[in-house]
Amino acid sequence: MSGVVTDATILERLKQLQINHPEVINHSPVKGSSEWSASLSIASPPLSTVNLTKTLLFKPKTAKTATPTPVLILAKDTTETPSAAIGKLLELKELRLASEDLIKEVIPSAATKDDISALALPTPIPETLHLILDSALAQSEDQHALHLTTSTTTILLKGSDIKSYFDSLIQGDGVKIVDFAELKASAPAPSAPAAKSAPKEKPTKATPVAAEDDEEKYNMAIRFKKDEDFSGWYTDVLIKGQMLDYYDISGCYILRPWSYSIWQTIQTWFDDEIKKLGVQDCYFPMFVSNARLEKEKDHIEGFAPEVAWVTRAGKSELDEPIAIRPTSETVMYPYYAKWINSHRDLPLKLNQWNSVVRWEFKNPQPFLRTREFLWQEGHTAFLHKAEAAKEVMDILELYKKVYTDLLAVPVIPGKKSENEKFAGGDYTTTVEGFIPTTGRGIQGATSHHLGQNFSKMFDISVESPDKSEGRLHAYQNSWGLSTRSIGVMVMVHGDDQGLVLPPRVALQQVAIVPVGLSKGEGKNQPIYDACSRLERELIGAGIRAKADLREGYTPGWKFNDWEMRGVPLRLELGPRDIAANTTLSVRRYDNHKSPMPLADISNTVRSYLDDIQSAMLEKASEKFDACLKTITNWDDVVPTLDAKNVLVLPWCEGSQCEDDIKERSKSQSNKGAAEDSKAPSAGAKSLCIPFNQERFGPFPDGENQKCVQCGEKAKSWTMFGRSY
Amino acid sequence: MSGVVTDATILERLKQLQINHPEVINHSPVKGSSEWSASLSIASPPLSTVNLTKTLLFKPKTAKTATPTPVLILAKDTTETPSAAIGKLLELKELRLASEDLIKEVIPSAATKDDISALALPTPIPETLHLILDSALAQSEDQHALHLTTSTTTILLKGSDIKSYFDSLIQGDGVKIVDFAELKASAPAPSAPAAKSAPKEKPTKATPVAAEDDEEKYNMAIRFKKDEDFSGWYTDVLIKGQMLDYYDISGCYILRPWSYSIWQTIQTWFDDEIKKLGVQDCYFPMFVSNARLEKEKDHIEGFAPEVAWVTRAGKSELDEPIAIRPTSETVMYPYYAKWINSHRDLPLKLNQWNSVVRWEFKNPQPFLRTREFLWQEGHTAFLHKAEAAKEVMDILELYKKVYTDLLAVPVIPGKKSENEKFAGGDYTTTVEGFIPTTGRGIQGATSHHLGQNFSKMFDISVESPDKSEGRLHAYQNSWGLSTRSIGVMVMVHGDDQGLVLPPRVALQQVAIVPVGLSKGEGKNQPIYDACSRLERELIGAGIRAKADLREGYTPGWKFNDWEMRGVPLRLELGPRDIAANTTLSVRRYDNHKSPMPLADISNTVRSYLDDIQSAMLEKASEKFDACLKTITNWDDVVPTLDAKNVLVLPWCEGSQCEDDIKERSKSQSNKGAAEDSKAPSAGAKSLCIPFNQERFGPFPDGENQKCVQCGEKAKSWTMFGRSY
Repeated sequence: MSGVVTDATILERLKQLQINHPEVINHSPVKGSSEWSASLSIASPPLSTVNLTKTLLFKPKTAKTATPTPVLILAKDTTETPSAAIGKLLELKELRLASEDLIKEVIPSAATKDDISALALPTPIPETLHLILDSALAQSEDQHALHLTTSTTTILLKGSDIKSYFDSLIQGDGVKIVDFAELKASAPAPSAPAAKSAPKEKPTKATPVAAEDDEEKYNMAIRFKKDEDFSGWYTDVLIKGQMLDYYDISGCYILRPWSYSIWQTIQTWFDDEIKKLGVQDCYFPMFVSNARLEKEKDHIEGFAPEVAWVTRAGKSELDEPIAIRPTSETVMYPYYAKWINSHRDLPLKLNQWNSVVRWEFKNPQPFLRTREFLWQEGHTAFLHKAEAAKEVMDILELYKKVYTDLLAVPVIPGKKSENEKFAGGDYTTTVEGFIPTTGRGIQGATSHHLGQNFSKMFDISVESPDKSEGRLHAYQNSWGLSTRSIGVMVMVHGDDQGLVLPPRVALQQVAIVPVGLSKGEGKNQPIYDACSRLERELIGAGIRAKADLREGYTPGWKFNDWEMRGVPLRLELGPRDIAANTTLSVRRYDNHKSPMPLADISNTVRSYLDDIQSAMLEKASEKFDACLKTITNWDDVVPTLDAKNVLVLPWCEGSQCEDDIKERSKSQSNKGAAEDSKAPSAGAKSLCIPFNQERFGPFPDGENQKCVQCGEKAKSWTMFGRSY
Repeated sequence: MSGVVTDATILERLKQLQINHPEVINHSPVKGSSEWSASLSIASPPLSTVNLTKTLLFKPKTAKTATPTPVLILAKDTTETPSAAIGKLLELKELRLASEDLIKEVIPSAATKDDISALALPTPIPETLHLILDSALAQSEDQHALHLTTSTTTILLKGSDIKSYFDSLIQGDGVKIVDFAELKASAPAPSAPAAKSAPKEKPTKATPVAAEDDEEKYNMAIRFKKDEDFSGWYTDVLIKGQMLDYYDISGCYILRPWSYSIWQTIQTWFDDEIKKLGVQDCYFPMFVSNARLEKEKDHIEGFAPEVAWVTRAGKSELDEPIAIRPTSETVMYPYYAKWINSHRDLPLKLNQWNSVVRWEFKNPQPFLRTREFLWQEGHTAFLHKAEAAKEVMDILELYKKVYTDLLAVPVIPGKKSENEKFAGGDYTTTVEGFIPTTGRGIQGATSHHLGQNFSKMFDISVESPDKSEGRLHAYQNSWGLSTRSIGVMVMVHGDDQGLVLPPRVALQQVAIVPVGLSKGEGKNQPIYDACSRLERELIGAGIRAKADLREGYTPGWKFNDWEMRGVPLRLELGPRDIAANTTLSVRRYDNHKSPMPLADISNTVRSYLDDIQSAMLEKASEKFDACLKTITNWDDVVPTLDAKNVLVLPWCEGSQCEDDIKERSKSQSNKGAAEDSKAPSAGAKSLCIPFNQERFGPFPDGENQKCVQCGEKAKSWTMFGRSY
């Protein structure tokens, strides 16, 4: 096919058809009609009532060697476009949504599957392509929204102009018009779901644009399977679970109460704990002068490409650009030098709860990689190295508990390799998590010992207490935990129905749903009253419960709603339950149902929630443990990675060897593991050297154990894996 | 005198003396030697051991009509420069530090009193000016730091070069050199403090540059009297009380634990209370796109000149500049439109704890006017106006309690006039505070009813529940409380010894100080042990106590230290106290001393702290009440303002009348009240229309009462005053 079509090409084509100055709106990239419509409704001027279109590209089943005969459909967003009926019409078999490869073949300008736009078809249009226009669209004089070449631009065109546009591109009779309403009437019964009818075929990545569910279904179910399209699943779970919403600045997300409350729970618990250790909270400005930022060159080198710069205030250019902090070492330490004048001023232990900005250009991912994120950063200074070293571990233990005790997520504490430690520090400790679905490790939180590197740079020093040693430079630590932890929790516990929240961090722990309702006004009042009484009783006992008395929704709808939002426990209450003085409880994490007596319900529920909390951690730990594979032969490395495991290798701890492991595993796995654009490392890097070496047993070759990669003497069992 | 000298002029003068390429360092504006030295120590490269100089301008007493004969001294920062001795030497009387007017007359380039630089003297130097150079400086071959024309630039020059510089400016014998060490030896005894010896003379604003205290004294006492130099006092109290520190970006300050903990106390209390009202916390990104920011024109008009813009990330220019939120109405409300689809989604009550940025170009002031500040912003939407109106008042009541119950600061709840309400809202309620020392009102926190203005703009609407009324637009509120509250507290309670903290918000409520110590190792151990026991007992009872066992400091030093930091209660424990099983308690706020039995000390202290809390509020309330003056004749307005009162006027509530009051009082008071550069309004504006009208009694003329200013019918008693 010929060259790439640009936005300008499309506008030029329109101009030649006398369609001049159509309205064009720029916005952030959108996935699917809900985001698209939201983006347009907040555009300036707002377009809240715009008619959307949808563009679908299907691939009919053909012999592997045959030229594909793709079908491209442009229709009103509200038009039903059943693929089976279209297949019948065109005499093509088993229409499936096209792969990204095919999309790019048909529309070379489409950078992602969200950028698919029929306007961007290059000419001449190949004869193998079936182009179909919805008659409801072709006949309309209303403005309709289409994308130009990317999902960041919307153009408004009359339906009749759209028809003219395609007619001009196609030789002969012009574009094929299909009346889908008529087609539907003559359609065959829908076939069984694709996954079942064609089990051997790799599931297509159904794009929101192509989703054929109606709006109700769209809202009421997670559209992707966790095992099939993890990235689509993750986003859908977060948005439908009301954890977050997309924002019109890429890489920034809105933390809704459902997720922010989890962060507050973590804050409250962790803040109490560090205060017991003598840490005090403070707040430094978010702005940093260039001079300060650049003070520690090694340290800042990693951050510099991601720093956001303020250069203007109102209409005035600033004399000097001012940075927004990416982290606060160089912001805080000049003041440590000022405040620490005597050994009596040590230890100094400060912590901040704030947000930092790292303007990453990689693919953003909610919670895991965002341009602004919330975190705490602790910065402490000690007279003696031993005190500092102890604190590093005390804090790491608290981080571990945040994961295990609050988020029910297993993590493995250990030390980072030289390659992976914090630049500018002496050593880094970490709690490492694991996402079984993708087989990738993920760093949970880190606690660094900075040694005297920064204190020498910033002259944080005191006269030694006994005067004998002259001036001593302080030993420093820094440690941080961010909202990423929430993302890890979602990835570990969520399932195909949506979020699964551990009780300790769930904003709502119990959903009380009235069931067995009758029609007729007032008839259900006794049930509603019983639900309200139960709610009050539980809330009185400190349990975060809510009775769902919303009218106009069926119990089934409500079950689904609370499941999607991950509420740990559902209590159903109907006439029969009330008569028996019981309620039917349903656990979210394993859907286990059991009746509970209403007598002493608060204590029952409380201990049940505790059990759920432990069981969730146990279940996740078993999964993690099962994926920890001790490997002593290199030949097993890539197959074990490809089977979504974490490697535990006897390793020499050498920097060069780590680089070699990464390269070697990457090159060998290029065919085995598809690159995931959200986490593009196919090679294995070291995750951590676990502190608990004993769990992996002695080396098979004992003292003579060799490093799996380089054959040098192995020093420790070390976790390697693909990672986020 | 001739024209203004620029930095370039100075460098050119140096060049002509063959002093080429001296080192020049740019930094933020500095006040005094501590800030200057801190700024240089964090410059790049750091200059931690630089020799500072000081520049002092004195005005000897002369007949009012005579030409002033100012004395300008440039000396090493460490040289003592007793003014009496200099006066004697020069045969001049009563040298006082010069007023800003005189400074500008002598050195026209000095924009503020901190920019005074001898290098910037214009030529020819008038014969009436006495220019004196410290011999220790003139003879030195070391580099010394001087400012160029402003306090933001430092130049390093050898002492001998400085001498050459001044010699070149002065005709005849060159600059006068004085050996201050010798002068001191022959000096008269220091005279009594200026305030006492010349009670009728307005106290000079002693600048830190001119402070003659040695470093120990500098650190150990507040250098300004609250009544004499309020602005100097305020800054000094905050820094020495360790509430905050200056930062190298103007208008940004570091909140140290001593102040941040107060904010956390407010957060915890207020967050609990609003959650009881059904409000949930969330977090929206700090960044806003231009399109969104400008959505509501009226609303944004007030903020636009103060918006900070990010235009660059790493080395890449952004396609579109991105703003940092000055407030979040236009950030959040598009999502309210998205999330609110049915009356069942109402009310929606969200709150954020975050920081916002308003890049003000006015004089910044810690807590009161800062470029980044911490606050909470609540944004709620209701189906019915009455619900919204009720919430406005519920929140205002909580704000009142933050001030009265936590900060022990009296406030008066009321409604803002039309001129003073939040732009874009229907009406604004406020709690108004008052700073007796300056006689200025200060807005404490505001709770706005936005009506349907924003909901119509953003289309936040639902189908009416009974379908009869069609679509209904939500009624909205927004409300905010910021760290400004901490500044108000400091201004109200602080005294000449430093901070005075109310017990409920003090990070440390009790300081236990060992007294009656003997010399000789180990002898004091029993006293220290008793102090530690007392500390443990109090902490065990939930009282934030600390035993000050720092060695090397006298009890007097410690008393002073904790007084400066405002700790509400000091307990002294010495051998005699221990023998008598008592401790001597000293209340910070009124210095009242009384012995307390150690038996049952926790309960005693707890109730004593409660009493202090109430007494502080009572004391402050009495002061506020005494300054609330009901005025019914215009002639009393300006004299009452000048006597630092708040006016309570019968007022018509007219917008034009309010403007007239402001102008009329300003023009009349121009002679009476000096403009305070930090709060430059000499005219009276309306503070609020108090909800409690009864406290001011009926109008003297009853129903026929006329507005004090315009003579129209008066509607309400309204507070008018100068304000922050």
